[in-house]
Amino acid sequence: MICIEGKTAFSGIAIGPIREFAKKSSAVRRSHVDDTAAECIRFEEAKKVAMEELGALYDKAVKEVGEDNAAIFEVHQMMLDDEDYCDSIRNIITTQEVNAEFAVATTGDNFAAMFAGMDDEYMKARSADVKDISERLIAVLHHGSGAQSMEMEQAIILADDLAPSETIQLDRSKVLAFVTREGSTNSHTAILARTMNIPALVCTPVADGMDGKMAIVDGMAGKIIIEPEESVLAEYQKKKEDESKRKELLSALKGKPTATKSGKSIKLYANIGGIGDVGAALMNDAEGIGLFRSEFLYLQNDHYPTEEEQFSAYKSVAEMMGGRKVIIRTLDIGADKKIDYFNLDKEDNPALGYRAVRICLDRPEIFKTQLRALYRASAFGNIAIMVPMIISVWEVQKVKEIMAEIRAELDAQKIPYGKVEFGIMIETPAAVIIADELAKEVDFFSIGTNDLTQYTLAIDRQNAKLDMFYDSHHPAVLKMIQMVIDSAHKEGIWAGICGELGADTTLTEQFVAMGIDELSVSPAMVLPVRERVVGME
Amino acid sequence: MICIEGKTAFSGIAIGPIREFAKKSSAVRRSHVDDTAAECIRFEEAKKVAMEELGALYDKAVKEVGEDNAAIFEVHQMMLDDEDYCDSIRNIITTQEVNAEFAVATTGDNFAAMFAGMDDEYMKARSADVKDISERLIAVLHHGSGAQSMEMEQAIILADDLAPSETIQLDRSKVLAFVTREGSTNSHTAILARTMNIPALVCTPVADGMDGKMAIVDGMAGKIIIEPEESVLAEYQKKKEDESKRKELLSALKGKPTATKSGKSIKLYANIGGIGDVGAALMNDAEGIGLFRSEFLYLQNDHYPTEEEQFSAYKSVAEMMGGRKVIIRTLDIGADKKIDYFNLDKEDNPALGYRAVRICLDRPEIFKTQLRALYRASAFGNIAIMVPMIISVWEVQKVKEIMAEIRAELDAQKIPYGKVEFGIMIETPAAVIIADELAKEVDFFSIGTNDLTQYTLAIDRQNAKLDMFYDSHHPAVLKMIQMVIDSAHKEGIWAGICGELGADTTLTEQFVAMGIDELSVSPAMVLPVRERVVGME
Repeated sequence: MICIEGKTAFSGIAIGPIREFAKKSSAVRRSHVDDTAAECIRFEEAKKVAMEELGALYDKAVKEVGEDNAAIFEVHQMMLDDEDYCDSIRNIITTQEVNAEFAVATTGDNFAAMFAGMDDEYMKARSADVKDISERLIAVLHHGSGAQSMEMEQAIILADDLAPSETIQLDRSKVLAFVTREGSTNSHTAILARTMNIPALVCTPVADGMDGKMAIVDGMAGKIIIEPEESVLAEYQKKKEDESKRKELLSALKGKPTATKSGKSIKLYANIGGIGDVGAALMNDAEGIGLFRSEFLYLQNDHYPTEEEQFSAYKSVAEMMGGRKVIIRTLDIGADKKIDYFNLDKEDNPALGYRAVRICLDRPEIFKTQLRALYRASAFGNIAIMVPMIISVWEVQKVKEIMAEIRAELDAQKIPYGKVEFGIMIETPAAVIIADELAKEVDFFSIGTNDLTQYTLAIDRQNAKLDMFYDSHHPAVLKMIQMVIDSAHKEGIWAGICGELGADTTLTEQFVAMGIDELSVSPAMVLPVRERVVGME
Repeated sequence: MICIEGKTAFSGIAIGPIREFAKKSSAVRRSHVDDTAAECIRFEEAKKVAMEELGALYDKAVKEVGEDNAAIFEVHQMMLDDEDYCDSIRNIITTQEVNAEFAVATTGDNFAAMFAGMDDEYMKARSADVKDISERLIAVLHHGSGAQSMEMEQAIILADDLAPSETIQLDRSKVLAFVTREGSTNSHTAILARTMNIPALVCTPVADGMDGKMAIVDGMAGKIIIEPEESVLAEYQKKKEDESKRKELLSALKGKPTATKSGKSIKLYANIGGIGDVGAALMNDAEGIGLFRSEFLYLQNDHYPTEEEQFSAYKSVAEMMGGRKVIIRTLDIGADKKIDYFNLDKEDNPALGYRAVRICLDRPEIFKTQLRALYRASAFGNIAIMVPMIISVWEVQKVKEIMAEIRAELDAQKIPYGKVEFGIMIETPAAVIIADELAKEVDFFSIGTNDLTQYTLAIDRQNAKLDMFYDSHHPAVLKMIQMVIDSAHKEGIWAGICGELGADTTLTEQFVAMGIDELSVSPAMVLPVRERVVGME
């Protein structure tokens, strides 16, 4: 029995044989060609076939994993059509008098190395895409087609890394789990696993030669157990059965209102960290998005995301969610997240530092770009704006002033925008204590219990040394939640929780009794929380 | 006009000529002696004279600056009588056949170098004392006396550094201020300046050749202005006059009760950082010590202070304060203060870290030593124990358990102790919110407004970048103070403030109206706060 730890990309348990996903061997030989013009035509024809294949993959992907996740194949088409890329291939054929396969392989290697050398994580990830399209082209040149068929029984897919085109070509009904030696929790594989609702591990150093061996993937604990002992296998089989029974039970709750037996209903929304999570939110029947963390737009770029980049992301989410509420939190970044282009100074206590709305009010140009993008996107769905780290009334008033400016600008430019609800995170003790004043200024409160607990207890929750003092159910925090709800209701606005505590089903009953109006939880926790509420008198 | 910045050791304004304090030149020649036995007797006789002089200096100092500050001359007597020191001198005379002066100078240099090379700040400071007694011995050998007389008019004393024996020999009525090029804010000069209530600067890089020049010492701003322009001089003369008028007014309040006209009285205590501040507390007529920071015992040592070392310090303060209340705060140290022997890990957010009572409960052996010393000292005065950084009821109960153990131990050993009040700092939002529960467990609350504000606003107050968001009068903090007072009174215990806000005279009236029972402020702020209270209806 071998147990190897990795990084969880998506949770769950899978049991089955390992299937090592081998790249189709497309060994490329360099050979001399006399007729370079004919060779260039060979390349153009192969490109045409590859483009068609990518189109078909796109259609398949839209059906299976949604438009958003399918978009990568459009990106591949664009890359394949890129002038620099194609020129490089034609150049190599013509000047070196070599075969198209060699020209494609060389160009692919060069472009992949160039992307891989970039600082930005997003651009780095594009390296795999260039390799992917180059391999497809070579396969078409060799075999007339780049499609790989993988005849297989149900298995745990093990690979160094998986290209989007590879994952989408797999017969999804046969994939029990993904385990990759490389990759990140934000890779395509991870996103697909989330959408497919199967466990996935990345960064898992599994040795070669495991093909065909029986294994257990424990997405909860982030490990793969190869050739498990019988007792371990039995234990996991039990766990898996319990899990699937539970899933069945929960899926019966889809489409049902989140209301107690006596008819008291709450809004049950999902927290998402990027566009890729919308699918999971919808699949789990979230009634809206209660917290859309806009940070990913800033983290994945090497520049301040432009108004257009932001607008397109916000618009996508708003459209995908139909008329359902999408609460987008404005920039929540600080010195603990290293984003080079923000040029943030190192701080002694970043958790008590220059972050979130403090940066937005100190550097309004960043904030205004985001607000303009948000307002423009609001014409395409039901968008609400939520501002984090508020401690004073004047901050809220200042934000509202800037918002009014933006609206005036849009009016002047005749750019449409919708009715946008405006709320704030309640995540500092100061905001709790003056919630009565703050409630006069906004449409809703969303309690960020993670930070609120951290500040209230004066405990950095990343600091394991303080575990004996940390209490996530501390009575002070629960009292504060009640204070916030009461202050909100006194002014006729609604109050919700979007921190981790909101998904703590041991507290759901208490929150409903306190009068909470909304709970926003991770997609996977939507149905378990609904189950709790539905079970209440 | 030259303006030189230094470090304030004590505040205030002085205007007058600079008097460079030159060490009495005692150039020592090495000369051969035949009769080493006679030379040893010469040394013994000089030692006797020096001992007598130190005794006289001690008596003078007791009268002028109090027993505690005078103690240094007893220390000097002990050092002069030290066997190693005397043996070294006799040895050098005998083996090298040299004069006593040379033997003393060599020994003094060696011992001073040895002390200076120690890591511990306290022992380092002893280096100056060895030099001091050696110079005295040499002066006696040369001139028959070590006493230096300094004929002078009123002046600002400028020196590289000042030995205790040098400062005490100065005619205090002639000293306007101390400015030293070296030294620390904890040096004897600084302590004496505080006791003498005159401005003092240390670490002030004044060039040579300033003797006799007119200067202004601005202890508030921490600078000396040499040969000031006329307008600057006029400005400072005005400031000085205002200051002394104000002092006169305030000193009329000494001995008066801190009560409003309608008879509502509060306890007005002083915050001190070490034994050396007791004089200032008494001189400013503090009615007790509301916060004695015990950290100095840990900071000035290179080892955990022993029970005896702590006992002696606590006993001194208790005795010096007579029957008045002395509230001693237990260890309040964390990763932001570098104390090597604590071996604390580096933390991402030390302000939200492993500190204060968290260390005490995690390493009870450190805590128990301190508590035993505190209980033993309580037999000699009116000591109360106060624990910082409380967030949960169980922490208080755990502290009380340990205290009960200590009392049982002392009972078993028949060691006496007094009745000790037990209180906690309220300096986390959690403690404010559950103050009603905490009040059932303790005798008093003392609100630490500095940390409370920091956690409530989620702002590191050392971080200048957040000044625009920081509000020391934030309504949330003021509301919390009211909550704490109300919770205390409901359980019949008293509540005070020992943070900086307590000394903010623009809030005194509001605090009294809120029902505050005690304010503990820096010694210099005792009378200004009393003035405010006395002026209230």
